[in-house]
Order: sequence, then C-alpha cells, then structure tokens
Amino acid sequence: MEKTLCYQINKERLLDTIKASSSIGTSRNGGLNRLALSEEDKKMRELFIDWLTKEGLKIRIDDFGNIYGRREGKRRNGPVVAFGSHLDTQPNGGRFDGVLGVLIGLEVIRVLNENDIETEYPIEIINFTNEEGARFSPPMLGSGGVAEAFSKEFIYHSTDTAGITYEQALEQIGYKGKKENRLREAKNFIELHIEQGPILDKKDKEIGVVMGIQGMSWLTVKVIGETNHAGPTPMEDRKDALIPAAKMISKVNGLADEVTGLKTTIGRMDVKPNIPNVIPGEVEFSIDIRHENDDIRYNSIETLKERLSTIAFMNNVDITITEDWNSDAVHFSNTVIQTIEKEVEKMGYSSIKLFSGPGHDAKYMSSLADTGMIFIPSKDGISHNECEFSNDADIEKGANVLLYTICELANINKK
Amino acid sequence: MEKTLCYQINKERLLDTIKASSSIGTSRNGGLNRLALSEEDKKMRELFIDWLTKEGLKIRIDDFGNIYGRREGKRRNGPVVAFGSHLDTQPNGGRFDGVLGVLIGLEVIRVLNENDIETEYPIEIINFTNEEGARFSPPMLGSGGVAEAFSKEFIYHSTDTAGITYEQALEQIGYKGKKENRLREAKNFIELHIEQGPILDKKDKEIGVVMGIQGMSWLTVKVIGETNHAGPTPMEDRKDALIPAAKMISKVNGLADEVTGLKTTIGRMDVKPNIPNVIPGEVEFSIDIRHENDDIRYNSIETLKERLSTIAFMNNVDITITEDWNSDAVHFSNTVIQTIEKEVEKMGYSSIKLFSGPGHDAKYMSSLADTGMIFIPSKDGISHNECEFSNDADIEKGANVLLYTICELANINKK
Repeated sequence: MEKTLCYQINKERLLDTIKASSSIGTSRNGGLNRLALSEEDKKMRELFIDWLTKEGLKIRIDDFGNIYGRREGKRRNGPVVAFGSHLDTQPNGGRFDGVLGVLIGLEVIRVLNENDIETEYPIEIINFTNEEGARFSPPMLGSGGVAEAFSKEFIYHSTDTAGITYEQALEQIGYKGKKENRLREAKNFIELHIEQGPILDKKDKEIGVVMGIQGMSWLTVKVIGETNHAGPTPMEDRKDALIPAAKMISKVNGLADEVTGLKTTIGRMDVKPNIPNVIPGEVEFSIDIRHENDDIRYNSIETLKERLSTIAFMNNVDITITEDWNSDAVHFSNTVIQTIEKEVEKMGYSSIKLFSGPGHDAKYMSSLADTGMIFIPSKDGISHNECEFSNDADIEKGANVLLYTICELANINKK
Repeated sequence: MEKTLCYQINKERLLDTIKASSSIGTSRNGGLNRLALSEEDKKMRELFIDWLTKEGLKIRIDDFGNIYGRREGKRRNGPVVAFGSHLDTQPNGGRFDGVLGVLIGLEVIRVLNENDIETEYPIEIINFTNEEGARFSPPMLGSGGVAEAFSKEFIYHSTDTAGITYEQALEQIGYKGKKENRLREAKNFIELHIEQGPILDKKDKEIGVVMGIQGMSWLTVKVIGETNHAGPTPMEDRKDALIPAAKMISKVNGLADEVTGLKTTIGRMDVKPNIPNVIPGEVEFSIDIRHENDDIRYNSIETLKERLSTIAFMNNVDITITEDWNSDAVHFSNTVIQTIEKEVEKMGYSSIKLFSGPGHDAKYMSSLADTGMIFIPSKDGISHNECEFSNDADIEKGANVLLYTICELANINKK
C-alpha cells in the first residue's frame, strides 16, 4: 500500500554517501572509531563541507565547532527549518548512530536541488560537535552550547583523558568558529536517528514517530554494615551489607512491574572489601530510573527511598540515598509529531509512536524550536557497538519521511 | 570459685614478654607489621631464640624455618608433647594473633624450669613460619610443610609480591635449616590462640575449648545475561544478570537459616560492565560455606547448586557454578579436649566448646599428633587488625590452662 512519491530519495547515492563516511575512522570489526574533534572527525568534516559546498550551500562554523549548511528560502530572513545530528562516534561504535541523521539530511538537500524545489523558509543542515560525550563529557556539548544549557566556559574547559580541552581540540583541527554563526531563529528542528533500542525491530515497524525523550534520574545508594571475618562470625551477629542490598535490588526491579512504563536499572554495584572470606561492610549501587512522565518518575523515587530505608532498618544496617542527577522529560512539538505521522501515513509505512530512552541533540534543540525526531529500526536494538545495523530499505524509508517532513515544514507548496 | 594452683603463670613476666614482642615491627596505630621472614620477623626470631637459650632448651631450625626449642623428659627418646603457634603477623595486624601461643608456651617452660619440674615426655615449643599467608600464599606453609600437606618444592617456590621466593627469604634472614630438624614422633600438639571471633566475648566466657576446625568450601557463581542500554531497552526484553543474582544471594543467605550451624558468606561480587546506564550482562560472586560436619556442608552445596540453577532457569539467564576449593573439617583429639576441659573445670574458669572458623597450625599438626586448641576471648571478635585486643586477665587464665594441660599430657605426676 505504499504510495508513489513525486520526489524521491536516490537510494544508491545515499548508500554511497554512507559508505564514504564508513571509510573514515573504520574500526577493526567494521564499525567506526571517530571521536569528536579527532583527526578522523576532521577528515569527515572536510568531506562533509566539500559535499555541502557542491550543493551550493552557505557554510558556517560556530564557536563550538558545529557545522551549518544553509539553503535559502523565499523568505530570506525567515526562521529556518533545521535538521541534522552528529558525525562523531563512540570508540568502536557503529556506522549509523548520528551519522545517518546528517547524511540523510544531505540527501534531502540533493533531492531538493536536483528537482529545483524552492522552500518558503530557509533550511539548514547541522552537524553537532561531541554528541557522544565519549571524548568530552558530558554528551551533547555542541547542541547544549547552542541552546545555552551549558556555558561556553564550561564546554571549553571540558578535558579528554589526555588532558586536552575542548577548546584546544577545536583549535587543533581548525574548527573554532564564531559565536555569531550559531543557529538563530529556528522554526523547526528535525532529527532522524536509529532507535538504539529493540522496539521497532521486534514489533516489525518501519518508522518510529518520537514523542519526546524520557526523563531520567541517577541515584546512588550506599548500604553500611560491618566488615567481619566469615569464619568465626556467627550468622546472627553479622551486619552484612550485601544481604539487604540484594533485597533492595529486587525491590527496585519490582517497582517497574508496578508502574507502567517505568524503567529501573542497577548497572553499577561495588562491594567492599570484596574478598571471598570477608563479610561485606559496605555496598554501593546506582539506580537509573526513567519515565516519560516526570511526576511519575519523582513519585517512584520517593517510593524507592521509603522502601529501601525500610529494608535497611529491618536489617539493622545504615543507608544513604543520594540523587546525583535529574534530567526532566522532553516532549516534542505536537505540530511536528502530527506532520511526521501524516507523511508516514501518506507513504503507507508501518509506524509506532514511542519515547526515546537515550538523549539526542534534539533534546536541547527543543528549547529553541518546534522539534521532532524520526526513528528507524536498529537490528536487535544494538548500538554503541560495531555490530550496530540498520538495513538499506529502512534507511531509504526513513530518508523519504525526513524529505517530506522537511518539505511540509519548510512549505514547498506555497512557492 | 577459682581454685588455688600449685604452680602458676608469672603474669608480670608474661606481660613483659608480650610487651617486648609488641615492640618489634610496631605499626603506626599500635599493632604489628611483622610479615613472615621479613627483617622484623628475623629480629623477633633472634629474641625468641635468645629466650629459649636462656631456659636451657635445645634449639633446632628445620628446612621451612620453623623454630623448635626442646626440653628433655624422663623418656629421652619418647614422643614429644609439642605446643606453639606463630610469631608472624598480617600487615597492620594485631599483637596477639599467633604471638600469644608462642609466648605463653615460653612462659610455661619458664614455670616448669623455676619449679624444677620434670616431665615424663620431652616437650617442644614451636614457632611456625608464615602462618598468616600474608607474604607467601597459601597460609600455614610452615606447619603444612611439616605435615607434608604441601611439597617442599611447592613451598620453596611460593613468591611474595616483590618476586622473592620463600626459599630466598629463608636464606636472606639465615633461617634455612635442615629437614632432619622437623618435628618427629609427637604425642600431642596444643595451640593456644585468640578466638578471632565474638563468641567468648559476647557470651562472657573465659576459655574456649576447641572441638576442631570447620570444614570450608569456596564456590564461584557466574550469572550470564545480556548487556544492553538502560534507556531504550524495555523491561520485558532484558536479560539483566544482576536481578537473578540478587535473588541468589538471598537464597544463599536463607540456607543458613534452615541448616543449623551453617555459615554462608558472599564476600566478593563483580558486576560487568558496571556502568550506571548499562544493564549488567554478567555477575560473578563467591560463596564461602562452612560447617563442622562435612556431610552437611557437601549436602548444602548440592542444595545451593540446585536452587541457584532454578533461579537462573526461571529468569532466562545462564549460570555456571564451580567449586574452587574444599577443605574438610578437622576434629581434634577427644583425649586432648577432655584434658583441657578437666583442667578448666579444676580452675573454675567459665568455658564453652566451639569450632574454629579460621584455620590454624593445629589443623596440620592434627595429622601428626593428638591435637587440641585453647581459645581466649577477642574483644568484639576483632582480628587481623591493629585494634585486636585480649585483656591481661584472660591471657593469664589461658596461660594457666595451657600450663596444666601440658603438665597433664607430658605427665609430671609420674616422675
């Protein structure tokens, strides 16, 4: 039931473009090792700018190293319809995460150009710096800088493991641009991205219409008992920190059964002194808790604090629970969501609405413009891994959705 | 109700002797740092031999560096009644662990000498090398060597963290003696030791009559699930290794409630990759399981294997359980136990029969001679720690029990 599209993505050209990207910073097992502002990233940036130039776009580099390519609209000074993602990768990451959002954006521009399409609003393609956060922490420094979620000073002083600052790295590869080149007055921001999760693949859907990004909190729980020797200490005299900690883990996991849509993860756990014949005196573990509804997330945190404290009390150990980090949910623009849905429906693609677990540049962009995201399937939900894979047919479909969403938002019918 | 003793320990002399030991290798917080075959150990050995010589004992050093001081009995070639322990300590260990058994033994000899007591059987005081295992692994190499639980080659090749072998260390401090000097034809071995546990202190008992040493097994459990990102992976699609591991820990701990006298400890636990926002793909933990009855211990291991495998199956994760080490229980000689009990009763001391959790030189000696141990209280059960403490009154009482036990076993009445 797929409808014939008037303008279409050139699949072969797009796949060639992706192939060219996959050859820059290729890792041993066919993934990518293209850390932000590295020599590999520089090489990729040069190729990207070369492509943009060939399409006649006006190039800008801002003070965070973000690259913009502008294609004018009828309204010369009108607000822009922006789209893009990032070309940097995790160490031994995949070929698609972020990269697709930029390269499919480029293909959209090529289609507009070869069909002589004029848009009402100017459009801009963006490559954001250091989305992954693998070289400079935290992630999404480029988009976060433009959205002023981080100060320029904070970003410039972020340092990699070799002691090189973000600012020095920008200078080293010659991508320290100007503040006035940052994105200004944007009408929309659209990011196409691989799902990095298993839902589309498992449910056999071609497109994910992203409603927003889940809110997330990180907590640290420390359980304090008493270290003692395993041999002589009778069971009834022990204050073993691990026994109540194990009960707490079951409790944290159990809450996700009670609260629809809640995700809880204990990813880190450290036992002290961690010796087979010594009763653990201290156990520390992390809780990662996510939900699309901030109230539900905060209520769940309170419930957990109460339940874990009760376990500690019943087991005669001490407990401290600290909230290390809260990141509230982002809800994307209804207009954009509806536009994407309408285009997907016209093309007859199967789709599902969902929330993103991981953060994306779209998170920060949503504070500047009406924002939305398009997900395409990730095989087995695998990401941040050389095995990351999305198939050609899904890439093409996602690209067509991006093309028609841009056309709709940038208003090609009114030319 | 304490009975007046005919011969008595000289408390002041004994405390002075302990004080002299506490000044060799003193650690910052008043404990001892006297690793086996170190310069500090050498200094202590020299002082010890000096004391033995003054008491007219015949000194021998065997090929493991064990020191013997012999006091002849009426039966010149009769089997010996041996006693002692070790003068080496943990790094930043206490002043009493092992040391008391040797120094109280010396005081026993002094009392016999000053009262001109002749024993039927010869007696020998022994200082065993490397009981702690803190410098050369495993522990109890000196006594284990004499009992031929380890080959001489194995012991000589045990290497410290600096790459020095046991044999080299023996040579460096001049304590590589002769094989023919090893303990031969022993009638008894008696070791006085601090409890290193809280039972005597908590129950307010003066003497522990040790029945034997608990059997012990070490197991490693590996739970294998699937690593995934916490953000996008729905709860129902996860194969989180930590959730079933937490249930297993509760199960292992729960078995100790069902089986009287069973001690189970999970001391080590490693989560991979141990990152807050990554679902653990693998969890490995140790089980330390102890009981005075070997059958009960082995049955408990089978029960645990069954129960943990069931949890793994129910949670759709893989599991491997390996038995790393089994050390069967040692049951001390009934004759010796009864002798100690009778002497304690005569003196009117409060006592309790108990099994030792930790291993001791007496463990290996029990394969060569009718063996027993006398425990004195450890304050709060603390040991292997600078805070380790036993009070003067308890030390004196323990010393009197050792004195009269030796007299009884070595037969002073028949002279």
